[in-house]
Amino acid sequence: MERAALDTLIGRMLEGDRGALAKLITIVENRDAETRRIMSAVYERSGTAYVIGVTGPPGAGKSTLVDRLIGQLREAGSSVGVVAVDPSSPFSGGAVLGDRIRMQAHFLDDGVFIRSLSTRGRHGGLARATRDIVRLLDASGKEFVLVETVGVGQTELDIMELAHTTLVVMVPEAGDTVQVMKAGLLEIADVFVVNKADREGADRMVGELERMLHMLPGQPSWEVPVLSTQAIQGVGIADVLAAVRRHREHRQGEAETERLRQQRRREVYDIVEEELATRLRQAMGGGAFPDILGRVDRGESDPYGAAGEVLEDRSRLAALLAAERREG
Amino acid sequence: MERAALDTLIGRMLEGDRGALAKLITIVENRDAETRRIMSAVYERSGTAYVIGVTGPPGAGKSTLVDRLIGQLREAGSSVGVVAVDPSSPFSGGAVLGDRIRMQAHFLDDGVFIRSLSTRGRHGGLARATRDIVRLLDASGKEFVLVETVGVGQTELDIMELAHTTLVVMVPEAGDTVQVMKAGLLEIADVFVVNKADREGADRMVGELERMLHMLPGQPSWEVPVLSTQAIQGVGIADVLAAVRRHREHRQGEAETERLRQQRRREVYDIVEEELATRLRQAMGGGAFPDILGRVDRGESDPYGAAGEVLEDRSRLAALLAAERREG
Repeated sequence: MERAALDTLIGRMLEGDRGALAKLITIVENRDAETRRIMSAVYERSGTAYVIGVTGPPGAGKSTLVDRLIGQLREAGSSVGVVAVDPSSPFSGGAVLGDRIRMQAHFLDDGVFIRSLSTRGRHGGLARATRDIVRLLDASGKEFVLVETVGVGQTELDIMELAHTTLVVMVPEAGDTVQVMKAGLLEIADVFVVNKADREGADRMVGELERMLHMLPGQPSWEVPVLSTQAIQGVGIADVLAAVRRHREHRQGEAETERLRQQRRREVYDIVEEELATRLRQAMGGGAFPDILGRVDRGESDPYGAAGEVLEDRSRLAALLAAERREG
Repeated sequence: MERAALDTLIGRMLEGDRGALAKLITIVENRDAETRRIMSAVYERSGTAYVIGVTGPPGAGKSTLVDRLIGQLREAGSSVGVVAVDPSSPFSGGAVLGDRIRMQAHFLDDGVFIRSLSTRGRHGGLARATRDIVRLLDASGKEFVLVETVGVGQTELDIMELAHTTLVVMVPEAGDTVQVMKAGLLEIADVFVVNKADREGADRMVGELERMLHMLPGQPSWEVPVLSTQAIQGVGIADVLAAVRRHREHRQGEAETERLRQQRRREVYDIVEEELATRLRQAMGGGAFPDILGRVDRGESDPYGAAGEVLEDRSRLAALLAAERREG
């Protein structure tokens, strides 16, 4: 895209144009060459949205909870952006999105913008793309951005790092609470939500989570609340938002300023790293180092030795990494 | 470590020394500077182990299933390596590993080598480390290597790419099968295992999975079986191993040769990328580009703009990336 056209698109997005926002999100989701230029241009306008992460095991009712949170935030007059990170599936758009139907009711509301982010074919980079999309929603003026991740894994934990407050949603049937620890959820939760709290075992799960939180080493400055909800019936949602507000107030102060400074530095590394990885893949996929890769194909070199040869060939490597990325 | 000492260690590992194997795994897990040298040295001796991946939602009974598989493989006279990829937890070694107690019975068996791999503090690189550790177990002479991942997320899907046969373990309570699709498990399963098959809803889950598999687009050359087990009672384990054997036979042939060629090339990219990322982080954490990062600290540059400046400063960047990584 030409620079002038891109600048126009960015300007329209900052003025609240939903179509422009959607187009920019697509560019950033695809990690196109324009990504850095867009993000640099909108950066100054971001930083005001409050980001709430929602994660937990499959089937916990996260989408329903997100729907209810949207509803209450909208009633309070706040605008809301949503990024739902969905793993790949061959049934795209069909059955998979079935439980998003309620959430889709909000699509008609101008104060809400919802985007599903597919993980199909991605290896790494998903947390980066999610962070950038959250920042676009932020810059477009959304007061709250909800990030929902499906699944429980390392990538999901990485994504939750961008949330100001992380809700971990559980259900009584999700297996015993030891599984929560194994999935690393205990450490990232700012608020626990035991959903479907009318089911058997809910009270026991609340008690177990509270005991586990007290077993955590160190003296936490924030006591993680364990709340009960019945998201489908709308029960307990106000308490969840009240806990988010309390956690938001708790986060202020000097430690937060230093945390943000370190986060900005880490972002610089991440962006440089992502760009270099893209250049490397383009160059090697495009025929660079044919001699070395040829020996790998013929079984004369192992991948580790071949990588060592590439790394030692400093002049070719430097030329390759300094090259501008090809567009498209 | 000095080159001669490392070569001695590698030699001892290849002769079957468990202590040497454990030490090499630690080096590779930490991604120390010696990693590439070790992996290049053992590469030729690897490639004979059959790698079985075991994944699925938390609480599905994966560790118990792995324990039973070890037992049957040992009865048949095969040696077995196990890599259990565990997310980080503050309760390391304690309660978290509670359900590994049975598996630990095998620690006394010389034909079994079990290693837990923590994900604490890792961002990416986990799939790479897992692949290398599997290859070390392979080179040490293990006939089967089982890789168990806890959790359901993108990193776990990435790790499963290194398995020759992937078992996806479900339980009737794990939420309805739509959740399986959402987690991307349908596409990676070579064999489905519905564990705790004595519980209510097990037959329905088997039926649903079979229907979903038939809905997948394309004409698969391998029909994914859906098996029932009661791992704790040892029921159905032999059928699982029989399905693995059938899948192993199915994988032979020309397509497999081409797949392996492409996989080797991808490995070269991955190894180069990992090394460059490490050099970048060391250099930037160690004070490179103080001018640019200083402006980020003072809020005069945004992270995207600053990353652009780093990328455009080609001479400094090339010097930095060509520099040898510092040891330790």
